[in-house]
Formats: sequence, structure tokens, C-alpha cells
Amino acid sequence: MVSVAILGCAGYAGQETLDRVLAHPELEPVALGSDSLAGRPAAALDPRLDGALPPFTTNEGAAAAGADLLFLSLDGDEAAAFEPPSGAVVVDLSGAHRLADADLARAWYGTAPGAWSYGLPELYPPTGQLIANPGCYATAALLALGPLAGRIDNVVVDAKSGLSGAGKTLKQTSHAGFVLENLSPYAVGAHRHAPEIAQQLGVPVCFVPHLLPVRRGLLATCYVQTDADVRALLEDTYASSAVVRVLPAGVAPELARVQGTDAAELGIFADVSTGTTIVICALDNLGKGAAGQAVQNANLALGLDETSGLRLHGVLV
Amino acid sequence: MVSVAILGCAGYAGQETLDRVLAHPELEPVALGSDSLAGRPAAALDPRLDGALPPFTTNEGAAAAGADLLFLSLDGDEAAAFEPPSGAVVVDLSGAHRLADADLARAWYGTAPGAWSYGLPELYPPTGQLIANPGCYATAALLALGPLAGRIDNVVVDAKSGLSGAGKTLKQTSHAGFVLENLSPYAVGAHRHAPEIAQQLGVPVCFVPHLLPVRRGLLATCYVQTDADVRALLEDTYASSAVVRVLPAGVAPELARVQGTDAAELGIFADVSTGTTIVICALDNLGKGAAGQAVQNANLALGLDETSGLRLHGVLV
Amino acid sequence: MVSVAILGCAGYAGQETLDRVLAHPELEPVALGSDSLAGRPAAALDPRLDGALPPFTTNEGAAAAGADLLFLSLDGDEAAAFEPPSGAVVVDLSGAHRLADADLARAWYGTAPGAWSYGLPELYPPTGQLIANPGCYATAALLALGPLAGRIDNVVVDAKSGLSGAGKTLKQTSHAGFVLENLSPYAVGAHRHAPEIAQQLGVPVCFVPHLLPVRRGLLATCYVQTDADVRALLEDTYASSAVVRVLPAGVAPELARVQGTDAAELGIFADVSTGTTIVICALDNLGKGAAGQAVQNANLALGLDETSGLRLHGVLV
Amino acid sequence: MVSVAILGCAGYAGQETLDRVLAHPELEPVALGSDSLAGRPAAALDPRLDGALPPFTTNEGAAAAGADLLFLSLDGDEAAAFEPPSGAVVVDLSGAHRLADADLARAWYGTAPGAWSYGLPELYPPTGQLIANPGCYATAALLALGPLAGRIDNVVVDAKSGLSGAGKTLKQTSHAGFVLENLSPYAVGAHRHAPEIAQQLGVPVCFVPHLLPVRRGLLATCYVQTDADVRALLEDTYASSAVVRVLPAGVAPELARVQGTDAAELGIFADVSTGTTIVICALDNLGKGAAGQAVQNANLALGLDETSGLRLHGVLV
Repeated sequence: MVSVAILGCAGYAGQETLDRVLAHPELEPVALGSDSLAGRPAAALDPRLDGALPPFTTNEGAAAAGADLLFLSLDGDEAAAFEPPSGAVVVDLSGAHRLADADLARAWYGTAPGAWSYGLPELYPPTGQLIANPGCYATAALLALGPLAGRIDNVVVDAKSGLSGAGKTLKQTSHAGFVLENLSPYAVGAHRHAPEIAQQLGVPVCFVPHLLPVRRGLLATCYVQTDADVRALLEDTYASSAVVRVLPAGVAPELARVQGTDAAELGIFADVSTGTTIVICALDNLGKGAAGQAVQNANLALGLDETSGLRLHGVLV
Repeated sequence: MVSVAILGCAGYAGQETLDRVLAHPELEPVALGSDSLAGRPAAALDPRLDGALPPFTTNEGAAAAGADLLFLSLDGDEAAAFEPPSGAVVVDLSGAHRLADADLARAWYGTAPGAWSYGLPELYPPTGQLIANPGCYATAALLALGPLAGRIDNVVVDAKSGLSGAGKTLKQTSHAGFVLENLSPYAVGAHRHAPEIAQQLGVPVCFVPHLLPVRRGLLATCYVQTDADVRALLEDTYASSAVVRVLPAGVAPELARVQGTDAAELGIFADVSTGTTIVICALDNLGKGAAGQAVQNANLALGLDETSGLRLHGVLV
Repeated sequence: MVSVAILGCAGYAGQETLDRVLAHPELEPVALGSDSLAGRPAAALDPRLDGALPPFTTNEGAAAAGADLLFLSLDGDEAAAFEPPSGAVVVDLSGAHRLADADLARAWYGTAPGAWSYGLPELYPPTGQLIANPGCYATAALLALGPLAGRIDNVVVDAKSGLSGAGKTLKQTSHAGFVLENLSPYAVGAHRHAPEIAQQLGVPVCFVPHLLPVRRGLLATCYVQTDADVRALLEDTYASSAVVRVLPAGVAPELARVQGTDAAELGIFADVSTGTTIVICALDNLGKGAAGQAVQNANLALGLDETSGLRLHGVLV
Repeated sequence: MVSVAILGCAGYAGQETLDRVLAHPELEPVALGSDSLAGRPAAALDPRLDGALPPFTTNEGAAAAGADLLFLSLDGDEAAAFEPPSGAVVVDLSGAHRLADADLARAWYGTAPGAWSYGLPELYPPTGQLIANPGCYATAALLALGPLAGRIDNVVVDAKSGLSGAGKTLKQTSHAGFVLENLSPYAVGAHRHAPEIAQQLGVPVCFVPHLLPVRRGLLATCYVQTDADVRALLEDTYASSAVVRVLPAGVAPELARVQGTDAAELGIFADVSTGTTIVICALDNLGKGAAGQAVQNANLALGLDETSGLRLHGVLV
């Protein structure tokens, strides 16, 4: 068994990572880090968690527990300051280590690029033991457009995310009185996932995210000019994937089929009047957009079955 | 007093039109048409409607009631077949008379262009007595981009609408089990509001609508390339409008502030990395997107105060 | 014109009170109090508020503005400590002055009963210049059961409220990640509106509130044993009311028809198998449950038309 | 392997049953019945279903497929008319065979009681091969109150259900324009789950259901007078259950923790002022309230592990 520590386990992505670890036949949680819950039993986070789990410890304590595998579900600042223990596989779910360009990394996260590899398994498999897990929006845009890199222009990504993408911290824009029955664009033209998408695609990207009044799920509608055979490229890229499904012509992705799962759906459309290709990706921001991909990256780094522990089955309505 | 007949009064747009007519000091409802409710009292539609209103009659009966002003809240087919009574002002809320090009009108609605004027008061004031009321999506896109016509290129309109935009008819995609906690793109690259927007802008438009899990409200995120001073043009266009509000720099429109009203909000943003201008419009699909605009058009055609009967005041949270 | 000061104007109930004051032909807002927004323009709260309004001042400043009418939309503690200016009408929207029993007032609010009258206009019209505005849950339960006081037993009130009832303060149970797609009972058997309801009914009440995933609206399902002719009593009580509507037999109240309004709906049902009478009340927690009722109380205290400024018309879908 | 046929597989409960069957190590789906989808591939219902499954057949065809185990997810009328194949285990998810009293069965379902056992595993384990699966509301009320049978009086069950409890059929009250941002009581004092609950408890029950604006999940707030030690009785009853969890004192059930699962949560509270005991149950109407319980019943009838195929693990936020 591979021993696992989760730092920041009480946040959304942390709890979801724990969910996958508990379902994984070869991972064993040995340390649950949370500075706010340190000393309390696992059930303090959620009554579904029972006494077989260790009580919460501090994030520092969890880091020092000697685990083989660490998941960092921390703020970017905390993740940037984290010193990886020698020999361990570390998957960082924050944005601290995603940008390879020194200027961009400093501008958006106040960090310096290091020895971390960017891990999006279907397109950019992780290398080494230090893995930067992609952002939720970036994952959706890249699954849609990554296979077209070098052959696209005029990229617009209009994305819509459920509330859990904003994290558990209390703030006005996460207050239910603001979110319910509302739709609000935010960080228009100024979101830090834009340079992350552009870094992988090699072209600038106009990116606008919107906050949806739903708990989970993310949909990115991507508009490009291209002369590539988009369907052929995407079907070829994901032909053997158990995670990414290219839908038949005429079928659009929707949140309902990916919520609570680690799967992603892609739909491909053409606008004849303008010659625009539209690729739409739906995924769960906490699944393929965070915890599911983190465990998938860990599986690859450890040589385990790529989809062990992932939520990929079921046809809930 | 101007006598009013509403055909299709039991649908969403019909009931909302009645709402404005009841609030209007110079309009008096004399005939409520509904083939399904004919013969029943007004309260059969909604217990808030009292006995002072006439009972429902058939749409044919309402058309023949001799009203000075008729609102058609019918299917496109029914509206296309409707014979306007001589001398009356008629506002058609369907799409039957929106497209001026004969081929487009036939292709999208199976109708022929006639003597109807397209009435979007702030940009294209109605002329004559027969008025085609714009589509909800088209209204939002045109309020955002109409003042830039002739100076924009590469137009992408990514729109999101509440459920009531789909009407009261029972269909799988309006079933709450499909809508709740979901987001679904539909008619991707093939929605009939696209040629309507293109007709007014003079350029082709890539248009993708999405169905939101909210009852009311519509938000259109519009992406263009332009060298115009967008803020100056929009602020100038709407400077004296009581309906359309251009928000200060940095403030984004949101559904919550326009739901239940006949107002619209515009926000203007720039994406530096791609040189894209982003104009976002929020409105209520049943308000400025349908009934509010219909009454506004009728006010203009009848020489009444443009905003009489409209819902423009209030700061509900 | 009657000059008005609103203390706590930046909260939900404060903003809604301002909404009614702005619509009122005889009230004029002269001071908007908010300790967090003091010094900023009205538009800082909401871009729909324009420059004709005075900028925000502190709550202390608003209290000292010499207004004829003050609305207190403050925490209970702040309202309890508030010294009413001599000669002014004061409507307190908090719970500080609702309980007449000294022990109960101390136990639930840490306050002492004073010279405040409990004002629920249809049942307990306010007297004097200091008025305690009822709680939202209490208003619903009392509209349903007040006319039956003295003739009911075994009272169960199962209530469900939209999120805005919990206020704008940031807390975990108001975070959208907790509220969305959820339903949660809270303060089970221990909510401070229970003694308020019991005080007016004269019998103990088993009261359980639940938090709904909607922004506005409250529904109370009330179960009692009684031998009274409930329909006759309720129809008689509300026969001349423009605010409370007793629905016909077989029609149930629902949130959608009262949201955004100051009206209330009552439905009356019998359970034959147990001999239970079920009275259901729907209202908007921010309307009849707070700001609408506050303005209604103020109108009565000032000798104005009881429903001036209220939102009672319209048939929005 | 046990061969399985699902009749009515295209409805919500049918698809959810298929979800559990696909996850079950000892069940193999051999026939998917749906009169509307007959002849089409499984993916016509949901693109997540792949080609390894047989195409849809008619319900008659599925019944005749010779399966060892049949799930009936049909209307009550169809289920009542169904002739069970000899030797097969049949679990009926409709209400046709739930009421043992001939008059009640005829009055509520137009059926006659037969040789079917009522199967709610934790309280009333099924016997024989023909099993009537309890209603969703009845399951929640009985999990809360069944262990108290014979010791309770004045039973009020106030229940709230997500939309999927109403089924996939198109009707006005399932239209999203009616459901979104609304809450509506229905069948007040006249719902057919009331006699089902009363039958098992041995006392009459006042039952009122409400429709919530959520896709999944059901919460029943049950009010009783009793002198039993409720916590001791419930904790004892469910001590060894992997499905039903009695929450610690002070913790209330909520929908979010049971959605998408086959688990149920119980919370126990006291109202001191009236001496009322409040037991609250949360479950997923499609899980423990339908498909999960159906598979659980089938497991018991076939001598398999009681929880095989059920969704009981995971801590999704």
C-alpha cells in the first residue's frame, strides 16, 4: 500500500481527493492535514467519515508524516512555500507551479517556476515526482483544444463553472444570496487560467469565466478558426481514454452527465456563417477539474493503473 | 383609454404582457385570448387575477374584439397566418415578421416578409402600425453591439438564458429533471436568432445559446474585434435611456439585478492578450427580451410615454 | 413629505425597505445608514441607485439626521441599545422588542421589554410610535393561525425559507456550496420565532425551520387540531385585505406567486384520517416578512394609506 | 451470474436501477425494456451506456426474456396487470402491490392485494419471490418512525422531495418554469403514500408532501408524541446497518450528504415546549427511496450480499 497525506483536506478539493483515496485499492490515507480541524476526528468534517481514519493534524504535521504520496490542496502561497519531502510523489492542486515562464509565474502567483511538471494525462503526461495539477478551466479548454495546438487562431473560451470552483472560503461572491438564481461573469479578460491555457496551446486566448448557480460542474464553450479535421483529431486523441468521451455529431455535452464523476465530455460543432469551429467540454470542476485528475496523475507517477480510485462508472440521472 | 387584446395570453410572454398592461395608466385590456382557457375566468390562469378582468376568449375572438392595440404572443406559424385588423396597432412577439430577407424568412420561419417594421426602440424605433418585436437573444446582442455596426469583425455571441425563454409548452428539454442543476448548450451554430442579429449588424455572427437552471434572465457575452471607442459609443447611445444602463468600468452585468424588470445592463471589457473587446448584456428574457419591449414599442406607435407600464424601478435584492 | 432614515440600509432588509420608500409617494429618504459603506455613494450598494440619493452615513449619523420616520434594520443587540429620538416613528425590524415577557425577552434576545407595540397590521395593528416588526416566520404562522387563537391545540409549524432570511453576513450555512441543491433543517425545536408565535397564539408551538435553495420566499405548513370553521374565520379576517389572499378550496400557496411582493397567500386543507387542519401560508421573507410589513406598519402609525409604497400588483410568472 | 430484466428502463427509477445492476458483481442485465425506445441501442437513453449492453426491447419482450430477476419500473396500472413469470424474483417499484387492505388497494391503486410481500429490509425484510418496493416518502417516514410503532400518537409527516420523485412524464407541475425557485405543497392530506405509512405504523398519519426545486433527494420531518426512548430505539435498530445512519445529537440530516447514494440519515430532536419528538430522515428518492432499495430487496431474495451494487461509499461535497 502507498501511504497518502492530504494537506488542506477540509476544503472542497481536499475532501474530494480523500473520496478518491478511500476508493483506491492501493492508497492508504495516513495523514489528514487541516490547520482549522487539527486534533479533531475525521467525522468533524463529514459524518460519513468514520473512526477508522486518523484524526486531523496540522498541514505541517501531515507533511512530516512520511507519506509516499502527498496531495497539496492549499492556497497558492502556501503551496509555493512548501518544501517537498525527499523521495515522495507530490501533486499540487494549486496554481503555484503551473506556469513555466518566470515572468508569468511571478505576475500571476508570485512564485518561481521550479522542477514541477504540468500533468494533464491525456495530453501532457506528468514526469518526475513533482506534479502541477492543471486548473479546472484550463483542463476543460485544453481537452477541447489541446489536440489542435498549432492549427488554431482567434481563440475565445467562454466558460461557466459551478460554485465549488470558488472554494469554501467565505466571501461575498460565494454567499448564496449572490449566487442563487444568478449568473455573473467575473475576472473578465483577467483570469489566471488564461495564461495557463495559452502556455499549452502556444497562442493567446480570450477567456471569460461565469459563475453558475449550481454546486458542481463546468462547461467551456471554445470558439476557434482552424482548417484542421477537428473531429478526427479529437477522436483519435481520446480513442483509448476511459476518462474523456467524444460525443457523436449533434450531441452536446451537459453538466448533468459529468457531475460527481471524473469523466469529461466533448462536443464538436461548426458555425457555417462565420466558419467558426465550436468545441464544448463539460467536466466536474472537483473531479476531472481537480481531485480526479490529481489521483490520475499520482497513479501515473507511481506506476499504478491510471484510473484506480476514479469515479468513472454509473449512469445517475 | 386604448383598448387592448392579447392573443396567446396564457403563455409566459402573454401573461407578462398582461402584467404591464395592467400597470399602464392608458391601456385597458378588453380581450384575453387563449384557445386552451377560452370560457374560463382570468383567475384560471393565476389566482392573482381578479374578477374585474374579462374571461378568456379564443384567440380568434380576441382578434375580433375591435381592440385598438393587439399583442400577438403566438407560435410563429399562427402569427404568420394572422390577418391584422385594419387600423389597429399590432405588436408581434413571435419571430414570424422579424427577417426582412425573403429567403431567410422562408428558411427559418416559413413566412414571407411583409409590411412589418423591426422595433427595438433604442436602436431601431418602430415605424407604422405593424411591429415585429425582436427576439430575446437578439435584443441582448444588439443592445451590446448595435451601436458598433460597421466597425466590428469576428463576432461571437455566447448567450445563456433562463428556462422561461423556452416557453410553457411541455417538452423534454423544459422538464425540470433536465433543467435543474444542469447547463446545456443547444441549437449550436443553428439558432434562428443568429440571422436576426446578423441582419441588423450587417456581419455574420457565430451564436451559441445555453439553457441555464434559472427561471428568468438572459446574459449575452459578446466578443468582437474593433477599433471603435466602444465605451464612448455605448454611453452616447444610451445616455438618455431609462431602460438601458451602461455600467461603470470594472462592473459586470448580472442576472439578479434585471430579473423581473424591463431594464438591461451593459458592461464593457477588453482582453489585452488577444485585442478582443467584450461587451456583456444582461436583461430579463420576459421583460426587455419580450413583454417589456412589446409595450415599449406599442407606446411609441401610439404616441404615449415610451416607458409607461414598464417595470423599471426598484432595487430588489 | 415624511423624512426617512434607514439604519442598516446595506443589509437585505434595509435595501428592501429602501426599495419601498423610493416607491412611496409620501416618504423621502434623507439618511442611509451603514457603518461599512459610510461615506460612499448610494450606487456603492447597487448600481441601480442613482446620484439623487444622499451618500451613506454611519448608523449613528442616520439616527441623528432628524428624520420623522426611522427603520432599524440592525442586529438585535444594536437595536436593543438604540435610543429612539423623541417624536419620531421607529419601526424595528430586528427581534429586540418583539417579546413582551421579561424572562423570554432576556433569554432569547438579552433585552428587556419596553414601550414597543407588536405590529402585524391585519391582526395586531401597531399602537404608538415605537413598533416591533414581526419575524418572517412568525408573520407566516400568525397569518395562518392568528384568527384561530383560543381554538387550536397541538400546533406544529413546519416552515421553509429562502436564503435571504439568513441575512447577508458571511457564515458557513449561507455559503452557496452549502445551500445549493440542498435542504437543511436548523435550530430544530429551538428557534426564537417559536416563543414569538406562542406569545400571540396563547399556546405552545412546535416549530421547525428549513433552509431552502432559493433566494427569496417562505412557506409555513401549519398543523392544528381545532373545531373552528377555519375557512370562514380566515376569509372573514382577510376579506378586505389588499395584502393577504385566502385561496379557493383545493388551491395551495406557492412561493413563485409571492416572491418579490408584499402579499401573502393562505391555503386551507383537512386531513380526514387524523382530523388535522392544515393551513399553509406563503409570503416573501423580505416583503410581508420584513420590509413590506415595516412600511405597512409605518403607514398606519403615520396615518397614511396602509399600502402606499408596497409591492402588491403584478402577475409576474 | 443472475440474469436481470428491467421493465420501464427509460424512466428515472429504471435508469437508476440499471446503474446499480451495472455495478453489481453478480447481476447481468439481459433485457432492457422500454416501449418508447424499443429497437434502439442503450446509448439512445444515455451516451454513457455503451455497446456491450443489449438494445432496448419492449416491456413485453423484456418480461419474456427468461431473466432470473425482474425489476418493474412501470406505472401502477401496468404493474398491476403484469403476470410474474414462474420462478423469477420480481421487484415492483410501483405502488400496485404495497397496500394489503383490499379496500385501500382498490381505492388508491385500483388493484387487488396479492401474494406480494412489502420489503423494507431494515424493518420489514421481504419474503418470497414477489416483492413490493416501498414508496420513497413511505421509506423515509418508516425509517424514522417504524421502530416506534405502537408507541406513537398524533403523527405528522411533513415531507419535501426533489423533482425526480415526480417521474419523467411531461406535466405542468414538472415543467421547469413551475419548479425552479419555487416550493409547492401538493396532494395535501390526500397522497397515496399516507395509507402506506399508516399500514406499517398501525396509526393514522397526517402527511403533506412539498415539491423542492432540486433534482434529487427527499427529507421527511416527522412529529410525534411518544414516551419511548427514541434515540435508544433507533440506534439499536440501525446499529449494524450499512445503509441507515443515526446522526449524533444536535446534527440534522441534509440532502447534500445523501444525494446520489443509497444511504439514509436520521436525526432526533425534542421540542420542549410542546413535548413533541421530531425525527428527520434524509435519503435520495431515487436511491434508498427507489432503485437502491429495489436492488437491496433483490439481494435478500436471492441470498446475495445485502448491499452488493449499492452506492454507499464516498464523501462527495
